[in-house]
Amino acid sequence: MASAKISHTDLLIIGAGPSGMMAAAWASQYNIKTRVIDKNHARISKGQADGLQVRTLEIFDSFGVVDEVWNRGYRDSEMCTWLSDGENGIHRSQRVLLQKVGISRYTSVAINQAVIEQTFLDLVSQKGRFHVERNMLPECLSLIESHPDDKDCYPINITVRHLHNPSPLRAPNGTGKDTRSHVQIKEDEDSDAAKEQQTGNAEAIESINAKYLLACDGAHSWTRRQLGLVMEGEQTDYVWGVIDIIPLTDFPDIRTACAIHSSTAGSILNIPREDRINRLYIQLGLEDNSNNRANINPRTMIETARKIMAPYTIDYKYCDWWSLYKIGQRISPKFSVSNRVFLAGDAVHTHSPKLGQGMNVSMQDAYNIGWKLGAVLTGTAKPSILSTYETERRQVALELLNADREVTRFYARNVHKTPSTPAAANGSEPETTNTPNFKLIRENLHAFLAGVGITYPPSILTSSQTTSPHALHIPLGARLPSHKILNQASARPIHLATLLPSNSHFRILIFSGNILSPSQASLIQNLTTPLESLIQKYPPSTIDILTIHSSPRTSVSIFDFPPFFRGPFDEVLGWDYDRIFVDDIAAHDSECGSAYQRLGIDKEKGCLVGVRPDQHVGWVGALGDVEGLGTWLGGFLVAKV
Amino acid sequence: MASAKISHTDLLIIGAGPSGMMAAAWASQYNIKTRVIDKNHARISKGQADGLQVRTLEIFDSFGVVDEVWNRGYRDSEMCTWLSDGENGIHRSQRVLLQKVGISRYTSVAINQAVIEQTFLDLVSQKGRFHVERNMLPECLSLIESHPDDKDCYPINITVRHLHNPSPLRAPNGTGKDTRSHVQIKEDEDSDAAKEQQTGNAEAIESINAKYLLACDGAHSWTRRQLGLVMEGEQTDYVWGVIDIIPLTDFPDIRTACAIHSSTAGSILNIPREDRINRLYIQLGLEDNSNNRANINPRTMIETARKIMAPYTIDYKYCDWWSLYKIGQRISPKFSVSNRVFLAGDAVHTHSPKLGQGMNVSMQDAYNIGWKLGAVLTGTAKPSILSTYETERRQVALELLNADREVTRFYARNVHKTPSTPAAANGSEPETTNTPNFKLIRENLHAFLAGVGITYPPSILTSSQTTSPHALHIPLGARLPSHKILNQASARPIHLATLLPSNSHFRILIFSGNILSPSQASLIQNLTTPLESLIQKYPPSTIDILTIHSSPRTSVSIFDFPPFFRGPFDEVLGWDYDRIFVDDIAAHDSECGSAYQRLGIDKEKGCLVGVRPDQHVGWVGALGDVEGLGTWLGGFLVAKV
Repeated sequence: MASAKISHTDLLIIGAGPSGMMAAAWASQYNIKTRVIDKNHARISKGQADGLQVRTLEIFDSFGVVDEVWNRGYRDSEMCTWLSDGENGIHRSQRVLLQKVGISRYTSVAINQAVIEQTFLDLVSQKGRFHVERNMLPECLSLIESHPDDKDCYPINITVRHLHNPSPLRAPNGTGKDTRSHVQIKEDEDSDAAKEQQTGNAEAIESINAKYLLACDGAHSWTRRQLGLVMEGEQTDYVWGVIDIIPLTDFPDIRTACAIHSSTAGSILNIPREDRINRLYIQLGLEDNSNNRANINPRTMIETARKIMAPYTIDYKYCDWWSLYKIGQRISPKFSVSNRVFLAGDAVHTHSPKLGQGMNVSMQDAYNIGWKLGAVLTGTAKPSILSTYETERRQVALELLNADREVTRFYARNVHKTPSTPAAANGSEPETTNTPNFKLIRENLHAFLAGVGITYPPSILTSSQTTSPHALHIPLGARLPSHKILNQASARPIHLATLLPSNSHFRILIFSGNILSPSQASLIQNLTTPLESLIQKYPPSTIDILTIHSSPRTSVSIFDFPPFFRGPFDEVLGWDYDRIFVDDIAAHDSECGSAYQRLGIDKEKGCLVGVRPDQHVGWVGALGDVEGLGTWLGGFLVAKV
Repeated sequence: MASAKISHTDLLIIGAGPSGMMAAAWASQYNIKTRVIDKNHARISKGQADGLQVRTLEIFDSFGVVDEVWNRGYRDSEMCTWLSDGENGIHRSQRVLLQKVGISRYTSVAINQAVIEQTFLDLVSQKGRFHVERNMLPECLSLIESHPDDKDCYPINITVRHLHNPSPLRAPNGTGKDTRSHVQIKEDEDSDAAKEQQTGNAEAIESINAKYLLACDGAHSWTRRQLGLVMEGEQTDYVWGVIDIIPLTDFPDIRTACAIHSSTAGSILNIPREDRINRLYIQLGLEDNSNNRANINPRTMIETARKIMAPYTIDYKYCDWWSLYKIGQRISPKFSVSNRVFLAGDAVHTHSPKLGQGMNVSMQDAYNIGWKLGAVLTGTAKPSILSTYETERRQVALELLNADREVTRFYARNVHKTPSTPAAANGSEPETTNTPNFKLIRENLHAFLAGVGITYPPSILTSSQTTSPHALHIPLGARLPSHKILNQASARPIHLATLLPSNSHFRILIFSGNILSPSQASLIQNLTTPLESLIQKYPPSTIDILTIHSSPRTSVSIFDFPPFFRGPFDEVLGWDYDRIFVDDIAAHDSECGSAYQRLGIDKEKGCLVGVRPDQHVGWVGALGDVEGLGTWLGGFLVAKV
């Protein structure tokens, strides 16, 4: 160890999976000194997670990288439940819209995790500020006490072994062959055992000192074990299979998400994917022991699927990946230590894949802590905001585990049904207490499952109540819903959310109401001085000012607003035409013209909204309440000296 | 010449501007042996054309390359007319929607021609089948008589000089500086004079033999002159200025397209562009002579603009490009010679830039001849289809010249107006015979200007009348209007047009009507055998079969259609789920569910539609009329031997 190379970084991210890459995306935006290390020698290429919920897609869009997954992924819009028909077959009993209309501009998609990891690798690489360092095996973690405000302290030390050889830590995933050696058993994976394989070479040791550590190192988190945190929760003993195939089938709903429950053969969750692939989660009805595991392979899994789906046939010639898993719901007692070490994703919560939530909640963990670390490390925000990570995200994980328990119970029930009726085939069958009611489960959970319903509790970052009587549907603590508005200068329709890219800025949205009313115009005029002095308390680019008025677009021009609202005049580039917007109808876009109404904002009176860098609403107040706004911002922002 | 390298190619394209690159895109799709040569050493980087009409955007989408121009370009949705207010100023008199609602999924955009050329260079380079050869100066053209059906004949010979040095043929465009040497006078450009500069080096000569030649070599077309074709038409003597600047202004409509007519200082056409740039076409009121030209520069142009726009101010610090032009409308008497040499774009029609049509009509010329050359050279279609190029496209050019004359007259009028009224400011002013009525001009021309109204006359490729009484709004000869439908298997909403990519295939669209009706189901069943034998007369991939039914989506599955309609079953990939679609509503997409109605198709009875590779409707008939369909296809397709 005496010869170890010693280095320093502001932020160390362990793990370059979806969570780690999401945090890396933020670190790129903030341009903070960052290292991202991963023990594996390459990103995954097949299998693993595949569901992206709408909030995750919104986040992707906020980084400008949603297009590929949105265009290429399979878009889930509805889900069918199939039940036993009381004889030897199954019938469609329900057709459920997976998402309420209007909650997002996206619907959820299913796509290979590899595409998602590559998307973020490309984003970070394009920024060119750091790159992912692979074959880096952490071996020792120490954390010393430090004052939260000490900016020059590196309280974290990690010893890392640079592996010379491509890491065999993870067995390659199954790739179209059924050979037994390719199976990947998540529960058996153990990096300690694998680590021993690496000792043959003389490998470099590095001692990395970091101000902050973010552990995104998965369900078997090395960091979590170093910290002595023990996962709490339950685990069943039954093993499920998961397989990605191109199905050869006459099942009519194969390209629709389906929950299929046979009378005695078990259940399947069918998820269509990109490029004609389907993912099947198959209840194998077997206890998890080595004898059973030895007998499970893609062929036996499809045999089980065939029994569940009878009389429909299913087979495959191409298998992309397969794995086995046990169902459990477990959570770490802590998500952070000393506000210096943070854990995200599978490292702190594990559950079944049934709700397609894992990758989403994990990436959203990292999205939450990522901007906070960026804001603290760049000196924009006070370190005390870091404690909101655990209060905001552990609650989400607990909700997820509850939802997962409920759905797991649903899949575990095998229900005998009366024969199919024409009404049933159309999904219009009335529900009875004996029917597994997937529709009801989805409806109860829909906002949570979409990710848009997640509402953070009051904290230093989120006010507990609005000071405006004119903003009824702007949800404090939740992400600001996006509706289509128009650019005042060009009449181009845009989604409100596209004004809130993940670029580190806080935003003050001035819903100015009807500025053709003299009283409102004078209110706006009087806002200039206090708003200007509020903004100037903080460094440039800390806060954006965006105005959305509700007067008819053609009756107003940007020159009807005080210069402050048009942004600074640049002597070469002139006025910024992307500061003033209008909630009005548009000839070519029927979605425009209802933003005020949908947000519950009074079209005459307007309001002020304070938005965090993660698009969550932190403050809502009356149009004149710059003082309240200033108090909110002053609670966590660091003023210029 | 004895030492000249001799080579052979199927298709030679001269000119790698927008038209040449559009033809190159087709050549890449058909994978025909192609050379693209250009005398310039690099693509343009600034200036030139910038308007893309909606049909052009649809064509870009058909090659999968619309995203960048659509997202980055400035979207024109409306245009304002400003007139003299009768005193010393101007006022807004009209606000015109540039495009009727519902005619396309796009609105027109304005973006630098360089972006467009690069988009197609990237497309061709991605295909990797050939590349653009630059610094290639054609010197001699000969064309011998040949039989149209002789596939092995190379009747065209072109001698080309490979220039060693970067070609100075075109003066570089103005780039932010006002230096006199940067001005580019289109009318003065003369490649013969420039050619002499190239004689100092010993440069290789190549003798290229080609089966077909497509000349996209611009307004001073070398090819056209070699063929002895003389442009016909008129030309004014007045010079206009065009300038791309980032304006510093208080003009309220600067980010809206505007026609501005002062009382005595002249007119301006203002076109907002990407990245805060504006293009201004400025009537300079000067005759075209060397003295006047010597006195024109960006500063004098902006001085004129300032007078026209008074009392508003306008200035700039950044000028991207500028040029001068004279207005005229000229057309070549022929667009092709011996069905072996074809001319497209500016080589055969020139006019003013006022309607933003030039690049569009030019690229659409190449889009028209491109697929025909591809189909003939691959042996799919008979050479006789080539004569439809001139009959289809010369008519379009004549219409364009007429429209340009009308708009030129409009801009030439300087009209004195009574003072502004509040109604006028909102664009609701009643029109009088003394007012230049831009609204009326646009409305008369709107379908033509959008490009979607272009209807090709009856020919070997286009039937003269439909045989179905159940398809009222499917326009024979025009491009098939696109409406949103749903994939039957996945419920994903898609635009009908995305089923018709520019990949060389002809399409038979089976609007099957309501297949829940027993008579309709039996009609569909009975279509299988005749359709199958029709398709099998031609090589694979010549014709796609796509079905769009009108029964409720949830009452039907793809297995309710005969296997033929589902496409061939692949033993690894299974069924193709992208063959059967439905016209039904969708929860998350309010645009779905009206395709039959908008196309005027009877929802019970349906119809058959034959679509050419360029998305133009060639044939419409009753659902059972496979014989009529076969006759149409047999008229131009080459059957298997």
